[in-house]
Amino acid sequence: MRLMVINPNSTASMTEKIGAAARAAASPGTEVVAVNPLRGPVSIEGYYDEAMSVPGVLQLVQNAADADAFIIACFDDTGLDAARCLTDRPVVGIGEAAYHFASLVANKFSVVTTLARSVPALEHNLIRYGLAARCARVRSSEVAVLELEHAGSAACDRISEEIGRAVAEDRAEAIVLGCAGMADLADRLSDEHGLPVLDGVSCAVRLAEAMVGLRLRTSRLGGYAPPPLQKLAALA
Amino acid sequence: MRLMVINPNSTASMTEKIGAAARAAASPGTEVVAVNPLRGPVSIEGYYDEAMSVPGVLQLVQNAADADAFIIACFDDTGLDAARCLTDRPVVGIGEAAYHFASLVANKFSVVTTLARSVPALEHNLIRYGLAARCARVRSSEVAVLELEHAGSAACDRISEEIGRAVAEDRAEAIVLGCAGMADLADRLSDEHGLPVLDGVSCAVRLAEAMVGLRLRTSRLGGYAPPPLQKLAALA
Amino acid sequence: MRLMVINPNSTASMTEKIGAAARAAASPGTEVVAVNPLRGPVSIEGYYDEAMSVPGVLQLVQNAADADAFIIACFDDTGLDAARCLTDRPVVGIGEAAYHFASLVANKFSVVTTLARSVPALEHNLIRYGLAARCARVRSSEVAVLELEHAGSAACDRISEEIGRAVAEDRAEAIVLGCAGMADLADRLSDEHGLPVLDGVSCAVRLAEAMVGLRLRTSRLGGYAPPPLQKLAALA
Amino acid sequence: MRLMVINPNSTASMTEKIGAAARAAASPGTEVVAVNPLRGPVSIEGYYDEAMSVPGVLQLVQNAADADAFIIACFDDTGLDAARCLTDRPVVGIGEAAYHFASLVANKFSVVTTLARSVPALEHNLIRYGLAARCARVRSSEVAVLELEHAGSAACDRISEEIGRAVAEDRAEAIVLGCAGMADLADRLSDEHGLPVLDGVSCAVRLAEAMVGLRLRTSRLGGYAPPPLQKLAALA
Amino acid sequence: MRLMVINPNSTASMTEKIGAAARAAASPGTEVVAVNPLRGPVSIEGYYDEAMSVPGVLQLVQNAADADAFIIACFDDTGLDAARCLTDRPVVGIGEAAYHFASLVANKFSVVTTLARSVPALEHNLIRYGLAARCARVRSSEVAVLELEHAGSAACDRISEEIGRAVAEDRAEAIVLGCAGMADLADRLSDEHGLPVLDGVSCAVRLAEAMVGLRLRTSRLGGYAPPPLQKLAALA
Amino acid sequence: MRLMVINPNSTASMTEKIGAAARAAASPGTEVVAVNPLRGPVSIEGYYDEAMSVPGVLQLVQNAADADAFIIACFDDTGLDAARCLTDRPVVGIGEAAYHFASLVANKFSVVTTLARSVPALEHNLIRYGLAARCARVRSSEVAVLELEHAGSAACDRISEEIGRAVAEDRAEAIVLGCAGMADLADRLSDEHGLPVLDGVSCAVRLAEAMVGLRLRTSRLGGYAPPPLQKLAALA
Repeated sequence: MRLMVINPNSTASMTEKIGAAARAAASPGTEVVAVNPLRGPVSIEGYYDEAMSVPGVLQLVQNAADADAFIIACFDDTGLDAARCLTDRPVVGIGEAAYHFASLVANKFSVVTTLARSVPALEHNLIRYGLAARCARVRSSEVAVLELEHAGSAACDRISEEIGRAVAEDRAEAIVLGCAGMADLADRLSDEHGLPVLDGVSCAVRLAEAMVGLRLRTSRLGGYAPPPLQKLAALA
Repeated sequence: MRLMVINPNSTASMTEKIGAAARAAASPGTEVVAVNPLRGPVSIEGYYDEAMSVPGVLQLVQNAADADAFIIACFDDTGLDAARCLTDRPVVGIGEAAYHFASLVANKFSVVTTLARSVPALEHNLIRYGLAARCARVRSSEVAVLELEHAGSAACDRISEEIGRAVAEDRAEAIVLGCAGMADLADRLSDEHGLPVLDGVSCAVRLAEAMVGLRLRTSRLGGYAPPPLQKLAALA
Repeated sequence: MRLMVINPNSTASMTEKIGAAARAAASPGTEVVAVNPLRGPVSIEGYYDEAMSVPGVLQLVQNAADADAFIIACFDDTGLDAARCLTDRPVVGIGEAAYHFASLVANKFSVVTTLARSVPALEHNLIRYGLAARCARVRSSEVAVLELEHAGSAACDRISEEIGRAVAEDRAEAIVLGCAGMADLADRLSDEHGLPVLDGVSCAVRLAEAMVGLRLRTSRLGGYAPPPLQKLAALA
Repeated sequence: MRLMVINPNSTASMTEKIGAAARAAASPGTEVVAVNPLRGPVSIEGYYDEAMSVPGVLQLVQNAADADAFIIACFDDTGLDAARCLTDRPVVGIGEAAYHFASLVANKFSVVTTLARSVPALEHNLIRYGLAARCARVRSSEVAVLELEHAGSAACDRISEEIGRAVAEDRAEAIVLGCAGMADLADRLSDEHGLPVLDGVSCAVRLAEAMVGLRLRTSRLGGYAPPPLQKLAALA
Repeated sequence: MRLMVINPNSTASMTEKIGAAARAAASPGTEVVAVNPLRGPVSIEGYYDEAMSVPGVLQLVQNAADADAFIIACFDDTGLDAARCLTDRPVVGIGEAAYHFASLVANKFSVVTTLARSVPALEHNLIRYGLAARCARVRSSEVAVLELEHAGSAACDRISEEIGRAVAEDRAEAIVLGCAGMADLADRLSDEHGLPVLDGVSCAVRLAEAMVGLRLRTSRLGGYAPPPLQKLAALA
Repeated sequence: MRLMVINPNSTASMTEKIGAAARAAASPGTEVVAVNPLRGPVSIEGYYDEAMSVPGVLQLVQNAADADAFIIACFDDTGLDAARCLTDRPVVGIGEAAYHFASLVANKFSVVTTLARSVPALEHNLIRYGLAARCARVRSSEVAVLELEHAGSAACDRISEEIGRAVAEDRAEAIVLGCAGMADLADRLSDEHGLPVLDGVSCAVRLAEAMVGLRLRTSRLGGYAPPPLQKLAALA
């Protein structure tokens, strides 16, 4: 099985880190190909970055004839709905993957993400997915995405403090880390706080594997109906 | 006052029609500039078209130094959140404008849009805006967007039938027409069915004028905080 | 265009202040007539005052043959639904006007109103309008309505403190001032806190103008159907 | 124990009928006093009638020194919140009483009321009470309130047909009759359709008795805080 | 009238205390029979206890030929839906009874229960009943159920402190005590805090009496349809 | 990896069929052990059956020292929350598994289950999981659970007809089959209707595998905290 893991931003070092996390999470026999658009925002922090990175993400999906499933490795699930119109092979966002799994191990979870400007987009996703009812609060740690690339202990400490607040104030029973760049912190923070801490990249890898195993296909009726071919051709 | 009305698709004839509708709705003294991206989908029908047209919309917003407010003239309010990050001048989507006004003249309204594939995106917007509680149902007439460009009576008849069903089955007290290309049908359908039929283009024009008049600015805190300058420069 | 601005309480000095605020907000060519019922509560603070002031408001609407639209200038939108049964000309509440505009410039807003006893009525309105999803919290400043009539800095300071809490605790991106008597404080507080602070009176004036400009009429179907003439005659 | 049953409309024959229904439902030892305002709408059908009848209802509550509890015997629960500000003795609306009991005997219920114009007000109440989640649908039978006063079989047949639709289409497990004037039809319709059919008048009587028995008092904190004495005096 | 009050746990001393509270709340002429399953958890604190106590509760309902109504005297309303399938006589949970009455005397209430582990089950009940909209917050006092059996002032003090927080932080207008074992504390706490404090046992007694008086029966359609006789026989 | 698949009813032939479906869906290397309680209802159709089967399910979980994860193979997710208190190894219900996957391939799905009496329990689960927002409607086919054991074409035809209605009336983009006994029908019905048809058993197998692969554990904080040992011992 071949999974294409798409980092929607153009920072290659982050793609590498995400690819490594995905490979570490994958089952034996799963091949992970981690890619990113050549152009586009260097990080996705808020609505504007998200919008600007989508066409690059979609192009990667369109050209990936040999992938069995796709993972969108930005926590806002950048371009997820549009990508599902382009193929009936599974497309999984790391945000939604983490939310779904958190719902299976906790009555309520909180999200700890990067900057305050990203919070409303995540809240909208949760409402749209239906899982807002399970999320106690989306919290920002004020650690920027690229800061995580050379994350010393300070960034991790700020995230850890926010997890402490989520347990005390939100009565969160599990924590979802709200950025692909936090993938390597999950185990450490889970041990420290004694509750499940979920990283979206690994969640999405295993969820996509499950969907491929189930031969589950995206519906072609309604909102995910494929665009007419001439439209696709014109925009290629 | 100068309003930039952005048709997110690349069909110039539709831009003209939208521009004419906007001018007809505008107050004396309001200048309407109707534009569209040079490239991008010829019509917006569903998630994929929406995603692909956003960068073009954003570029138009970024370069429009002399507009007092912006109208996004596609009923899915294409790129609305991202555009609000680029300027604190008002940005109004024609979908949201129609929903807000419909809420002021009816307890419940129904939407009649083009194709079934567009329905989920509109439903998501309504949930996100909070106005889903006021919308009885989003209905599709199976009239394609560009069919409306040379709309004989058949297209209008299909829309009219759907309005009849909305009144009988949904107990809708008002109707929102779910496509910029239906702007010229509102008055006729309102007379025919004896209830308010709202067209988003004219609603958005008057709403944007009101916001300019109020000197109302988009918040720079939280989700609409402006992206850092180097990001904007890199993507220009 | 002639707007009738109805202060539902019987305090004439407050009507004058509201009228001045409305005139300051109105477009050139809009005539503002500010009125209040001769009898009824001197201020609207909670359910009882609200109920007792409605018949006076409705009588003013019924007798206003020459108004193009009506504004109900109490933040609970006193008698709004009943007034819409009496005329198909636009009737706008200052509460709803502010909520709708706040939704166009912020992902989430908070309301800062007068007394705690007024909070539940505002919360019910927000739920009914559908916009509760956009409101982070309704806060009381414990400044009474008539205190605002001779408001020294103390009242404004208390409101300002509450705005500070709304930004810090609710992550509000905009503030709605929850009383007609706060109209003159909006600009000052907006400057002080660096975010949009909306006053309902001016919002309602521009929204009513927009509706008149759109020739938008309240639906006569369903909940706003006009009462039979003999009922109206009997109660006149 | 003395219950004051207030018919908010001014039709004395309906007050008598409601009083009889209340007495038939009351426990031994409960005295029922059925009253109505001398002036006001002859029937409550929609927002306008509701608003115009409230001051009369409130005056009756204010002057009823010897009642142990109050029942507002109009299905829109006319003036309920305002009445609760005037006394800490229980005030129960017949609409809410029926909804609460229906929630105790059925997973979902439907309401069958009089005219379509009354439906939105009932829907708003259900949302505000929180019980909208338990109500499958509010249906109108197009039987006017006063038609029920000399109700031959035709009115009852129309209501019965609507109940049939509620069972078949809404999967309602119980029916709430949406008008005080339908009190005498409940048993017959329950037998006919083989499911609980609830009449608000009797529900409210027993619920008010229960509250008096529990010595339960309306909260004086927050939204039901009593208005200042000088206000009450001024409006008496 | 005979009410069977079922304490779902197997602690006889608690059954006695609950029985005494029920008798104190009952009308003259109501006979209260307080029972508990012989086997099963000694207290109900969370999902596991709840599940293990249900079969014992159901057996008591099935064998109680002469009861006119049933009260399930654990605050999670243990086995309520299943019990309603076994008889059309009223079955009332003490949790739901308290929530319904609290909704009649307050705009918003908070719950103060025992341990944190019980909170999610109560939150789920509130959502399912529809009354989550009326509940500001479910709070735990960290007083264990059986601690209440020999409750010195310490337990009551902890509960009282939590009520103080509910008033200050949640703007609760009434308090619901979230455990059958707190029945004897309600009056004292109500006096201390000056707001309604509701105990579910007495609420359920009066509510069940009201339902018997109304001859209200649980619906036999849909979710509460009785199981086939052979199933009941096989499991007896 | 060893998965224990628990059929909560006591019909061994159904356990076999479910076990076969689970094995067919499992990855190579996954061992499936299918079991059922020795006593308890022969089928789970509604609240009563559900309640009576839970203790048997919990006992199986408690004694299964060597299972890596548990699947509860009844579509009401019988005893799911209680089972999660007994172990931190993953416990997955087939209902929730199907809902989560359906949310990943469709904007909206409908459920087609067995009898009308089962519908409310499924609706409550959907609300509690948060996924009610994604479910267009829960439909009953009036095919009893055990009828599926010797299902000729009639049962499958009735289910197929209901799927047809779900597509036409609910605009469902995917279908979830609402009974473990329908596992063998999914592929056929998917081909027939041209949209994803999900079977909960296979969904749960792959989801549980994913959770084991992720080393994801149920939270021990809050609602899923383990019961004290003496309680567990007393009930063993």
